[in-house]
Amino acid sequence: MVKIGVIGYGYWGPNLVRNFMECERAKVVAVSDGSADRLALAGRRAPGAKLIRSGFDLIHDPEIDAVVIATPVPTHFELAAEALRCGKHVFVEKPLAASAEQARRLVDLAEKHRRVLMAGHVFVYAGAVRKISELIEAGDLGKLLYYDSVRINLGLFQSGLDVMWDLAVHDLAILDHIWKSTPVAVSATGMKHFAGQPEDIAYLTVYYSDNSIAHVHVNWLAPMKIRRTLIGGSRKMVVYDDVEGAEKVKVYDKGVSIAESPEALYQMRVNYRAGDMFAPLLDNQEALRGEALEFIDSIEHGRKPLTDGESGLRVVELLEAATQSLKNRGGVIDLGVGADKFLGYIPQHIGTAV
Amino acid sequence: MVKIGVIGYGYWGPNLVRNFMECERAKVVAVSDGSADRLALAGRRAPGAKLIRSGFDLIHDPEIDAVVIATPVPTHFELAAEALRCGKHVFVEKPLAASAEQARRLVDLAEKHRRVLMAGHVFVYAGAVRKISELIEAGDLGKLLYYDSVRINLGLFQSGLDVMWDLAVHDLAILDHIWKSTPVAVSATGMKHFAGQPEDIAYLTVYYSDNSIAHVHVNWLAPMKIRRTLIGGSRKMVVYDDVEGAEKVKVYDKGVSIAESPEALYQMRVNYRAGDMFAPLLDNQEALRGEALEFIDSIEHGRKPLTDGESGLRVVELLEAATQSLKNRGGVIDLGVGADKFLGYIPQHIGTAV
Amino acid sequence: MVKIGVIGYGYWGPNLVRNFMECERAKVVAVSDGSADRLALAGRRAPGAKLIRSGFDLIHDPEIDAVVIATPVPTHFELAAEALRCGKHVFVEKPLAASAEQARRLVDLAEKHRRVLMAGHVFVYAGAVRKISELIEAGDLGKLLYYDSVRINLGLFQSGLDVMWDLAVHDLAILDHIWKSTPVAVSATGMKHFAGQPEDIAYLTVYYSDNSIAHVHVNWLAPMKIRRTLIGGSRKMVVYDDVEGAEKVKVYDKGVSIAESPEALYQMRVNYRAGDMFAPLLDNQEALRGEALEFIDSIEHGRKPLTDGESGLRVVELLEAATQSLKNRGGVIDLGVGADKFLGYIPQHIGTAV
Amino acid sequence: MVKIGVIGYGYWGPNLVRNFMECERAKVVAVSDGSADRLALAGRRAPGAKLIRSGFDLIHDPEIDAVVIATPVPTHFELAAEALRCGKHVFVEKPLAASAEQARRLVDLAEKHRRVLMAGHVFVYAGAVRKISELIEAGDLGKLLYYDSVRINLGLFQSGLDVMWDLAVHDLAILDHIWKSTPVAVSATGMKHFAGQPEDIAYLTVYYSDNSIAHVHVNWLAPMKIRRTLIGGSRKMVVYDDVEGAEKVKVYDKGVSIAESPEALYQMRVNYRAGDMFAPLLDNQEALRGEALEFIDSIEHGRKPLTDGESGLRVVELLEAATQSLKNRGGVIDLGVGADKFLGYIPQHIGTAV
Repeated sequence: MVKIGVIGYGYWGPNLVRNFMECERAKVVAVSDGSADRLALAGRRAPGAKLIRSGFDLIHDPEIDAVVIATPVPTHFELAAEALRCGKHVFVEKPLAASAEQARRLVDLAEKHRRVLMAGHVFVYAGAVRKISELIEAGDLGKLLYYDSVRINLGLFQSGLDVMWDLAVHDLAILDHIWKSTPVAVSATGMKHFAGQPEDIAYLTVYYSDNSIAHVHVNWLAPMKIRRTLIGGSRKMVVYDDVEGAEKVKVYDKGVSIAESPEALYQMRVNYRAGDMFAPLLDNQEALRGEALEFIDSIEHGRKPLTDGESGLRVVELLEAATQSLKNRGGVIDLGVGADKFLGYIPQHIGTAV
Repeated sequence: MVKIGVIGYGYWGPNLVRNFMECERAKVVAVSDGSADRLALAGRRAPGAKLIRSGFDLIHDPEIDAVVIATPVPTHFELAAEALRCGKHVFVEKPLAASAEQARRLVDLAEKHRRVLMAGHVFVYAGAVRKISELIEAGDLGKLLYYDSVRINLGLFQSGLDVMWDLAVHDLAILDHIWKSTPVAVSATGMKHFAGQPEDIAYLTVYYSDNSIAHVHVNWLAPMKIRRTLIGGSRKMVVYDDVEGAEKVKVYDKGVSIAESPEALYQMRVNYRAGDMFAPLLDNQEALRGEALEFIDSIEHGRKPLTDGESGLRVVELLEAATQSLKNRGGVIDLGVGADKFLGYIPQHIGTAV
Repeated sequence: MVKIGVIGYGYWGPNLVRNFMECERAKVVAVSDGSADRLALAGRRAPGAKLIRSGFDLIHDPEIDAVVIATPVPTHFELAAEALRCGKHVFVEKPLAASAEQARRLVDLAEKHRRVLMAGHVFVYAGAVRKISELIEAGDLGKLLYYDSVRINLGLFQSGLDVMWDLAVHDLAILDHIWKSTPVAVSATGMKHFAGQPEDIAYLTVYYSDNSIAHVHVNWLAPMKIRRTLIGGSRKMVVYDDVEGAEKVKVYDKGVSIAESPEALYQMRVNYRAGDMFAPLLDNQEALRGEALEFIDSIEHGRKPLTDGESGLRVVELLEAATQSLKNRGGVIDLGVGADKFLGYIPQHIGTAV
Repeated sequence: MVKIGVIGYGYWGPNLVRNFMECERAKVVAVSDGSADRLALAGRRAPGAKLIRSGFDLIHDPEIDAVVIATPVPTHFELAAEALRCGKHVFVEKPLAASAEQARRLVDLAEKHRRVLMAGHVFVYAGAVRKISELIEAGDLGKLLYYDSVRINLGLFQSGLDVMWDLAVHDLAILDHIWKSTPVAVSATGMKHFAGQPEDIAYLTVYYSDNSIAHVHVNWLAPMKIRRTLIGGSRKMVVYDDVEGAEKVKVYDKGVSIAESPEALYQMRVNYRAGDMFAPLLDNQEALRGEALEFIDSIEHGRKPLTDGESGLRVVELLEAATQSLKNRGGVIDLGVGADKFLGYIPQHIGTAV
C-alpha cells in the first residue's frame, strides 16, 4: 500500500485525489492546500485524510511514501526537490518545472536518491492516444508527415507563464510519446493582449529530424473549446477530436501518391486515394486512472514510469525554446542536436515510398 | 443585355456559366475550353452558346462585351491583358494573376481602357461573410484582435503554385474586405512532400498595423474538409464554419477583461465573461450569384466592382510575400508600408478599452 | 437520343431538367409550366427548349418520346394517364399518384401501352442507400430488426395532402427497395395545427411479416432539418444521416446477444458487444443523375426500371393505409396480405440466431 | 447536519454518494450494497462511512435521518415503505415505484409519517431543463404544440421492466415539470427481441388536454447515444441536445402562421418565418448536486421538494398506462380525467393565435 500525500487542491488536485483514492494499492493519507476553504472541501471528499496547510509540512510527514504535486508551475521545483531529498517518490503535474535547468536538476535528484520521478503527461494514458500510438507502431499510418493540433478555449492560466506552457505542453507530451524522430528546431509566434500578462495566443512549430513537422495553435481567447489533432501519414491519416463524445479517433484510408505518367518521365501527376473511414473502439478508462496506476506500479516495481522525469525534461526544453522564439518574433531556434541532422524544412521526395 | 464569353470550362467554369445564364441582364454567348469533351458538356448545359477551342479566339469575337476567365492561374495575365486591350470588361478568377507585377499591369490596362476589371473573390459575396462584415462595421465585435482560419482538404491544385495560392487566397480576400487595418508584414512556413511539386501544407501569418494578427492554415493533405474561421474581438467573438449546413456564423457574447484588483494596484486579474451565443439568419443566395450580379451591374453603371482589380492586386502582393517568406524558412517579410507603423508583434495594452 | 418533355418547373422540376440535359443519350426538348415567370427562367437555363404553358399540349407534341411529371400530386394521375395513352414513356415524381386506385390504373395503362412507367423514388439512387442495400444483401447486418427514421424540417407541402405524403414517402420508397419482408399492417398518429390544412406532424409505423418494424417521424414544424435513419440488425447497426456532408453512412459493429448463463438455464443474461465503427466510401454521384440514367436506359432497352410503377403503387398503398389510420386515431390497418402472416408485434425469439 | 444512508452502490449510487458527500449540510454515514466488491469500492471512496450488506439494516440504524434508495426498481417500494415507517426521510431513484398502486401507498405513508418523500427526477434539476422551463413560463415559446424526444443507446436495464421504465421515465418527469396541461390519454407501441425479456424498443405518445402531443422514442438497441428533444411552440421552437458539450439548448426564432389571403377569405396560406437562433448560457452545476441540495433543504425546512412523491406517482401512472397500451398493440388508454377534456387528437385552429 503506497501512502500518498497530494499538494494542491485547486483545479486539478481533486481529480488526482479521487483517482488515487480509487486505487486498491494506494491510500491518500494527506492533502495540503494554502486555502482553508479548499481544505474543507477536500475533507468532505476524502474523509480521514490529514488536512495540512503547508506543502512542506506534508512532505516532511514520515507516514508519506509518495508526493503528488498539483500546484502552480513556479512552485513545482522547490516542492519536488525537497520531496526527493526527503526520499519520497514524486509525481509532478505538467509541465515538470518552470525551466529546463530546474527540470534537469529534478531528474538528477531522482537519480541520486533512487526515487521515482514522474511527469503528469496525462494524455499519454488516454485511450485515444494509446490507440494512435498503436497505429503508428504497427506502421498503419506509413511515414509520418505532419501533426497539426488546435487546442483552444476561453480561460487563462494564472501563473505568469504563456499559453504554450498551459496548453501546448499537452501536444509536446503526446509528441514525445508517439513521434518517431528527434526535434531539431522550434519556432513560435504569438500575441499578448493584456499589459503585464504573457502571450495568450501562440502558434508553435516543431521541426523533426525526418523532415516531419508539428504545428500547434493554442489560444486562451477562443469562444469555444476545440481539441482537434490531425496526423498525416503517407498511408493513412488520423483525426483525433477530444471534444467528441464518441469516435474521438477517426482513421482515414485516404492518401496521395505520385503516379509515373506514361506520357513523359518529367511530367509528374499526383493522384488521390479516397477510401473508407474507420473509428476504432477505444478503451474508455479515465486517463488519470491509468496515470495513477502507472505511478503506483513504478514505485512498487522500482522502475521508471512511462512518462518519467526525462520525458518531462524534454517537454520543458521545447517549451523554453518556443518561448525564446516567441520573444524573437518567430526566429527559428536550433535545438543543437547537430546541424547535419537538420536538413531544412523541405523533406526528401517521399512520393516513391508511398 | 451584357454578352458574356467564358474562358475555361474545367472545375469552376461551369459554375460561372450557370450563374451568368441565370442573370436576366446577361447572356452567355460563348464558352471556350481546350478540351473537346469539356466543350461538348458545355454544349449540353448551355445550348446555343458558341463553343470555341481557343480563349484568344473568344476574346476576339466582336459580339462579346465581357470576358470571364476561369483558367489555370499562370494563364490569367495573358488572357486578361488581351481582353482589356480589345476593350472587353474582364472578370478573372482568384488569384487575379501569378505575380504582383502582372496584377499591377492588369489594373493599369483596365484604367487605360476604362473597362471593368473584377477579381473573383467569391467569399466576399457569401451571406456569412457579408453578415460578419456588418457585425464588424457596426462595432459589435469591439476591437479586432485576431483572425484564425483553417482551410484544408485532400486535393492539389495542378498549376505549379503552392497551396497558399489555392486556399489562403480566400482568407486574404476576406481579410481585404473585412479587416480594418493595413497589413505590415507577412511570414509563412510550410512543407513540400512531392519532388517537383510546391508546398502542400503552409501556415501563413499576417501582421497588421493595429497589432492584430491573422493566421491561416492551408493543407492539401488533410483527410477531411475543414473551413473554420475564428474572429476574436474585444467585445464578441465569431466562429464561422463554412462546412456547416445551418448556423455557419455563431457570435459569442464572451470575452475577457482586466479587473482592477481591489487589493493592490500592481496585481492584475483577468476576468472572463461567459454569455449567450447567437446565430444570425444569413442570406442564403449563392455567393456566385451575387458575384455575377455585381459584375453585370458594374458594367452597366460604369463603376468599380466591390472586388476590383486593386483588391485583386493587394491579395496577390500578400501571396507573393508569403511565398518569399516560405522559401526563407519563415522569415518575416516587411511589406514596406513604413516601419513606424509596424510596432512589433506585441500589441498595445488593450485591456482598459474592453 | 430520347426526346424529353418536362411538365412542372417549380421546386423540383429544375433539378430534373438539369439532370436530363446532362445525359448524353437524352435531350430536353420542351418544358411546361403554368407560370410565365417560371417558364422564362426555364428558358434562360435550357435555351432552345420549347416553352409551353399547358402540360397537355406538351404531352401531345409528337416530337416528345418521354414525359417527366413534376407537378402537384393531385395532377399526377391525369397527366400520366394521358401521356401513356399517347404512347409516351412516363416518369412521375413521388408519390406516383394521389390514391392507390389511381396508381393501379397507371400501372395497367403502362402495361397495356407497353411503355415505361417510372416512379421518382430518388433516394433509391443515392450512394448512401445503395451502400446500405449492398450491406443488407451481403448479410452484413444480420437479421433486420428495426428501421427508425426522423425526417423533419420547417415547411409545408401545399397540395392538400398530409405530411406523410410529402416526407414519409421517401422512407417508404427506401424500405420498398431495401427491406426483405412484406408489410402486413400500418398505423399512424399525428396532429394538424392549421384549420383547413392536413396533418403537419405524423408518426407512422409499419409492421412486417418477419416481425421487424419501421417507424417514421415526419414533421413540417421542426426548427431544423433532420434526416436520420437508424437500421438495427442482429449483427451490425447502421446510422444514415443525410444532412452530414461526409460519412453519411456509419456501420457499427455493435450488438446484443443472449448469453446462456452457466449457473442456470432459466436465468438469461443479455450481453452487449461494443466494437469499431466503419464509414464506407460512398459513390457521390448525384442521386438524380442515377435516376435520370435509369429512366433513359429502361426506355432504350425496353425494360422495367428499378423503381417501376409497381413500386410506386406499393408506396401509395402504404400512404393511403397510413392516412386511414391517422383519421382513426392510430388504429392498426391490416394490409390484407393474410392474417396468418401477421404474428402480432411480438417477434420470435431471435436471441439464439445472433 | 442531515445524516444520510445510501442503499445501492451499483450504477447510480456512487453518483449520489459523491454528491451528498459534497453538501456542507449533509453527511453520508452509511452505504449498503449486497455485493462485497461494491462495498469495498464504496469504502475507498467514502472512508468513514459504515458499510452494510442489508438495506433494511441500514434503514434501522438510528443514527440515520434520511435514506437514499438507488436499487433495482422492483425493490423500491419495500425499502421506501419501511424507511418511511421508521420515520426516515426518503429519496427514491426514478421511477418512484414499480406500479402506481405502490407509488400511491408511498405518498400516503409520507403524508402519514410527515416525512419528505422525493423522486429522483434528476433532469428537472439540470441547467438545460431549468432554462427551458423559464422560457415556457415567460411565454417566449408561445402556445406549446409538441414535445418530441429521442432517447436511445445500446444497453439494457436488467430489472425485468420494459425500456420505457428505464428511459421514457426521464421525459415523463421533464414533461410533468414543464408542460402546462393535463395528460388525457397515452398510447405506446414497441418490440421485444429476446425471449423472456421485456420490450427493448418503444414509441410512446401522450395526448394532453390542450391538444398538444408528446412523443418519445426509447431504444436499447441503438448503436449510438442520442438524447434529443424538440419542443414546438407557436412563437419559438427549442432543440435540446443533451449529448452536446456546449449549446445544449437552442432556441429558434422560427415559426409558422396563417396569413389571411387578401384575395379570398376561403383561401388560406401558410407562411414561414425564418429567424435567428439563440443558445442561452446555461447554469452548468451538475444536476445531481441541485437534486441533493433540494432534498437536504426540504428536510431542513419541512417542505415538499420540487419533485415530490406526487410527481413520482404521476410519472408512474403514465408508465403503467403506456405498458398497458404496449400489450394492447398501441390501443389508446384513456387516463380517466374526463372525456370532455379529451377533444380528440385534432387540435383547435391555433393559427389566429400565432
